[in-house]
Amino acid sequence: MVSTSGFNGGWSKSALAFYYSELPVLVTGGCGFIGSNLVRALVDLGARVSIIDALISGCGWHHGNLTGVAQHVYLSHADLHDIDVVRQAVTGQHVIFNLAGEISHLTSMSNPQRDLSINASAQLALLDQIRLHNPQATVVFASSRQVYGSARYLPVDELHPISPVDYNGVHKLTAEGYHALLRHQFGVNAICLRLGNVYGPRQGIHQEGRGFIDTFLRMVLKGEQLKVFGDGRQMRGMLYVDDAVEAFLRAAAAGTCASAVYNIGHPVPVSLIDVARQMAASCHAPEPVEVPFPCDRKAIDIGDFFQNTERARSELGWVPQVSFAEGLQKTLEFFKPRIAERLHAGTP
Amino acid sequence: MVSTSGFNGGWSKSALAFYYSELPVLVTGGCGFIGSNLVRALVDLGARVSIIDALISGCGWHHGNLTGVAQHVYLSHADLHDIDVVRQAVTGQHVIFNLAGEISHLTSMSNPQRDLSINASAQLALLDQIRLHNPQATVVFASSRQVYGSARYLPVDELHPISPVDYNGVHKLTAEGYHALLRHQFGVNAICLRLGNVYGPRQGIHQEGRGFIDTFLRMVLKGEQLKVFGDGRQMRGMLYVDDAVEAFLRAAAAGTCASAVYNIGHPVPVSLIDVARQMAASCHAPEPVEVPFPCDRKAIDIGDFFQNTERARSELGWVPQVSFAEGLQKTLEFFKPRIAERLHAGTP
Repeated sequence: MVSTSGFNGGWSKSALAFYYSELPVLVTGGCGFIGSNLVRALVDLGARVSIIDALISGCGWHHGNLTGVAQHVYLSHADLHDIDVVRQAVTGQHVIFNLAGEISHLTSMSNPQRDLSINASAQLALLDQIRLHNPQATVVFASSRQVYGSARYLPVDELHPISPVDYNGVHKLTAEGYHALLRHQFGVNAICLRLGNVYGPRQGIHQEGRGFIDTFLRMVLKGEQLKVFGDGRQMRGMLYVDDAVEAFLRAAAAGTCASAVYNIGHPVPVSLIDVARQMAASCHAPEPVEVPFPCDRKAIDIGDFFQNTERARSELGWVPQVSFAEGLQKTLEFFKPRIAERLHAGTP
Repeated sequence: MVSTSGFNGGWSKSALAFYYSELPVLVTGGCGFIGSNLVRALVDLGARVSIIDALISGCGWHHGNLTGVAQHVYLSHADLHDIDVVRQAVTGQHVIFNLAGEISHLTSMSNPQRDLSINASAQLALLDQIRLHNPQATVVFASSRQVYGSARYLPVDELHPISPVDYNGVHKLTAEGYHALLRHQFGVNAICLRLGNVYGPRQGIHQEGRGFIDTFLRMVLKGEQLKVFGDGRQMRGMLYVDDAVEAFLRAAAAGTCASAVYNIGHPVPVSLIDVARQMAASCHAPEPVEVPFPCDRKAIDIGDFFQNTERARSELGWVPQVSFAEGLQKTLEFFKPRIAERLHAGTP
């Protein structure tokens, strides 16, 4: 199922370039991790790219994420609650890639009202403007595998019961609900991608309190010894960011042929201890150690998790192309020359 | 399954009276329709009842709902976002019956941010105070059958897929998610009751834009001809409010033996045209007419809906006691002498 030909290989590049050439698109959260990688791909495909990003303190944006493409995009520094800016931003766009949000599970537990504002209220404000001023647009939303909570069976398909285990997951589900209403009540082609464990260049390793990938990367890049909670045998599908980006591109291009919801994760899992060992070895960091689970992390840990992505394969022709070994190598190639720069977000 | 012995009949009254006698309880939304009926039952059972209610304009409260019991309850007129009042209100309570909220599907569609604030943000604020200051309390939340959306099979059990069709349903699901986190992450005994089509005395018939029961009651009480949308053959479980109240009382008394979620609806459905005809006949109003579905109503109509309540029967011993014919008679007996008074909410 997995080859290592990379995002730029195969038939898809030319077909997608044809579709996106000169296409007006908006990327919300375009200064963030996945958002900025998507923006770069869209610029490369010849799209006319606008970005709206609030550059919220603590979220995953980084001042260097648009380096080299900033002159090719129109950037609005605004919150999604800013109705006038959002109305202008959504008007006339053919596709709205909706990646604005906070991803930290831990921060959501310590400040759930902040998470509600960023991940639910702001989404509602955005979608209201789309409904009112551009209902013809296709909207592709960055949802999360968090909506499932712990896996009751593996791999997890889109029919798996919904039971989020943290506020971030609850609010991602709320935003999915908004997109479902947009689709079913207001006739907007809204599509939700349930992303699982995405990693790669421009990941927000400068932020504390995020997932294990960010933390692991930050530590090994500083030469520190990784601590793996528990025995590290939890299995996760590790999805390289270019594969996630291609899922967004394909979902939007599928238009009204697309389903409402897709799993977008790597279907072949890796254990956390293997992730840690490969990272440490690649950075000549000390061998990882296993430590007891901290209480706050244990409470929101979901054990083994990987997704059945058959729906995305059959309907979107999407198959992840990048193995973890290859993706890790590319990720470290990006970060190693930029460690000092990447340990701070910069200024908005 | 259904007898007509009434809420006060059978073994449950004395057992519940023993449990609730002198028990400190809080009812959020205690001036509303179901809330005030619950308050009256709790006072009758000898509980020490506190209420917190924001008396929000447009919600279902009525100034007459506590007539006759006001001197036996402690009422805080405050919003759930008011941290200091809420902290004091939740402290020391054994049971917190959580019925605060807005129920209008239509209003949620025209003003979803208002619905988000009332049904999600305010709930989050309340539950935060419970988690911090009274995690020993049992919390029973008034959720809704709306979280299911349209029925994919009938009767709808608790394992039915979740797919709300309006903002009100999305936010009720968000609040359920908060209660699930309270239960699973913070160890609070939180229970959600998914209520379906409750009717009875003190229903908010003075408010526009609510469900068909409120509208039908208001119209027949004024002698007006009912208009049934479509052919009126949609089947609904009609639950008399005393039966809903008993579900709250039993769920809280079951304590940690209770499940996280229960369907609470009448399992024997009645068609909307039959509801309308029985109401009209009882009030000597003209025979109902069938009219085409208005667009805003059709969009959020869910067709036939009634619930499988086997879980509540087997775990809580809860079985609805009141047939629609009997419940309707009791409801009209309440409203007929109070029509003028009941057509306006009054002042907070």
